[in-house]
Amino acid sequence: MESAIPPHLQVKRTRHRRVPDDYQPPYPAFVARHRPAVERVVMAYFGLQYRGDPPAACAAALDWIAKTFAAAGGPKHWDRARYVDEAGYTNLLFVAYWDDQKIFDTWFPPAREGWTGAKSNFAGLGTFIEVLSPSVNDYETLFSSLGRPEGIAVLADSLSGDVMEHAYWGGMRDRIPKSQINDMAPDGAPSILRDGDRVRVKPHDNICLIRSGQDWSDTEASERKMYLDDVEPVLRAGMDFLRDEGRSVNCFANRYMMVLDRTGRPTEKSYGMSWWKSLAALERWSESHPTHVRIFGAAMKYLSSLGPAAKLRLYHEVTVARTADQLFEYRNCHDRTGMLNAVTA
Amino acid sequence: MESAIPPHLQVKRTRHRRVPDDYQPPYPAFVARHRPAVERVVMAYFGLQYRGDPPAACAAALDWIAKTFAAAGGPKHWDRARYVDEAGYTNLLFVAYWDDQKIFDTWFPPAREGWTGAKSNFAGLGTFIEVLSPSVNDYETLFSSLGRPEGIAVLADSLSGDVMEHAYWGGMRDRIPKSQINDMAPDGAPSILRDGDRVRVKPHDNICLIRSGQDWSDTEASERKMYLDDVEPVLRAGMDFLRDEGRSVNCFANRYMMVLDRTGRPTEKSYGMSWWKSLAALERWSESHPTHVRIFGAAMKYLSSLGPAAKLRLYHEVTVARTADQLFEYRNCHDRTGMLNAVTA
Repeated sequence: MESAIPPHLQVKRTRHRRVPDDYQPPYPAFVARHRPAVERVVMAYFGLQYRGDPPAACAAALDWIAKTFAAAGGPKHWDRARYVDEAGYTNLLFVAYWDDQKIFDTWFPPAREGWTGAKSNFAGLGTFIEVLSPSVNDYETLFSSLGRPEGIAVLADSLSGDVMEHAYWGGMRDRIPKSQINDMAPDGAPSILRDGDRVRVKPHDNICLIRSGQDWSDTEASERKMYLDDVEPVLRAGMDFLRDEGRSVNCFANRYMMVLDRTGRPTEKSYGMSWWKSLAALERWSESHPTHVRIFGAAMKYLSSLGPAAKLRLYHEVTVARTADQLFEYRNCHDRTGMLNAVTA
Repeated sequence: MESAIPPHLQVKRTRHRRVPDDYQPPYPAFVARHRPAVERVVMAYFGLQYRGDPPAACAAALDWIAKTFAAAGGPKHWDRARYVDEAGYTNLLFVAYWDDQKIFDTWFPPAREGWTGAKSNFAGLGTFIEVLSPSVNDYETLFSSLGRPEGIAVLADSLSGDVMEHAYWGGMRDRIPKSQINDMAPDGAPSILRDGDRVRVKPHDNICLIRSGQDWSDTEASERKMYLDDVEPVLRAGMDFLRDEGRSVNCFANRYMMVLDRTGRPTEKSYGMSWWKSLAALERWSESHPTHVRIFGAAMKYLSSLGPAAKLRLYHEVTVARTADQLFEYRNCHDRTGMLNAVTA
């Protein structure tokens, strides 16, 4: 058993962990371990959107992404996913990860100009960029099983052994190193800055992002049926609630995404990705809102009936970001796209 | 909105509350308010047990209880309840409350001698006494509605206005004044002391007691049916789990009691009463064990479908007691009675 917070990030606490030192989680879980030299990572969501059939520029945009991401200084890992949003637009998201901010900072300016800036040239498409570049003190990960890292964990040296801080409400907070000394309270409110065709969202301190995924590709007949029939519809209902009514619980935006393979076809992986006013708002929804209580209940029933034989893989990554570590930029997007929702709501 | 911790018990914190200062619970709840002069209360459970039909001594025991409780220095409030335990014995519990320990200390010695001591004379009955005498820093209460206090709250001056610390996991801990500066970790393990016919349990520091009750006497047709058909069976299953398998989650003993009226007939009130190794053990079961997740899910569904129109009344009282504030004494009881379970398990 090890702490989710690696030794080199442990500091003298001013705030306590929620569970006692002899706490034993009832089942194992694992976190991403970066080498200590990694001080900061970058999670960059490049999005495009359109309504109806894909416009001709779509192919060019996909080519642009592939080429730009493959260029020197491009992400160490990226994946792609799709969803149809509340306004009926199809959105494609390309999520790219770095573990060296200097490399990103060199790579990013021309990429930004080409995607949402003056050089953007994708007729009929909305494009957007949402970036967090947190310190390693500012985020956490969690995996239900070993062997298939996702998201930022693909860049990690390894997954940990069994960690202590999970399987209780508050474990998410306790896994973020900053929680040892900081309550991570939000400060301020998002606002909009217009710059020609671009709309930027000026964020606030300690906004929270969660990417929470599931991978049912290894499940077989009866387990697959149980996931698709008993769990997925409840998960979808919760995701729809956050998308359509999330503002009532301080969720600014939610996307329930289907992961695509390199040829653009759906895989058997999905993830929810949502922007929250604060970690506390995410905690409250998770713990007590009927929509998440039902998700939790369905997942508990599923996992307790299958036990260690379950082949479903679950993971998430949660970041609480400082204002300086956030960037939101939208071009030709409808006004409920992503963090624009936080302001127009 | 007020804190569950009254101003005269607020101290400079060394431990944080789990929710931010701007937390707003989604529905109201209330706590008992004693006058500031009350420093310590007493919660005394007098029990008797028998198997099969009540022996002749049962009537004498009931008379003894009524007379002894009515004597000078007797409890300000008491109630009675019944259940059949895991060994098939019927148990009657008479729960008595004081808000002045000096008065209790004068009253108690002869009562103790008459019930579990040398002067006890109830042939065919087991008798037992379980007492906590916590400081007002060491326990909390919670009520879903005003107007009908139960348990220790009957002795309070009033119920509070809407309190802040509820409707989130961890609220129970945050309502106990001691949580401001103390993690309430258990220290030691219970052991048995034999004294002739009496068996005492030598307790450990920071044992936890919860009495958690429901009152459906005000419910009408459809709500009553929903409580009895959808909630009560799930509650009962959880209570049965704690009774039969509680040791696996550090619950020493659980009694799911039916409250009786003054003539001994069942009312439309019940409560679960359980002894736990620690507050943390109670927190873990409540938050994550499938049996309580189902109770919570059923209660959430019930309350969210009825909203403020719900007539079901819910309350609880939770104490974390120092060793010096505990007494457990059993005479002619079977060896899985109450806290004896903590040792024989």
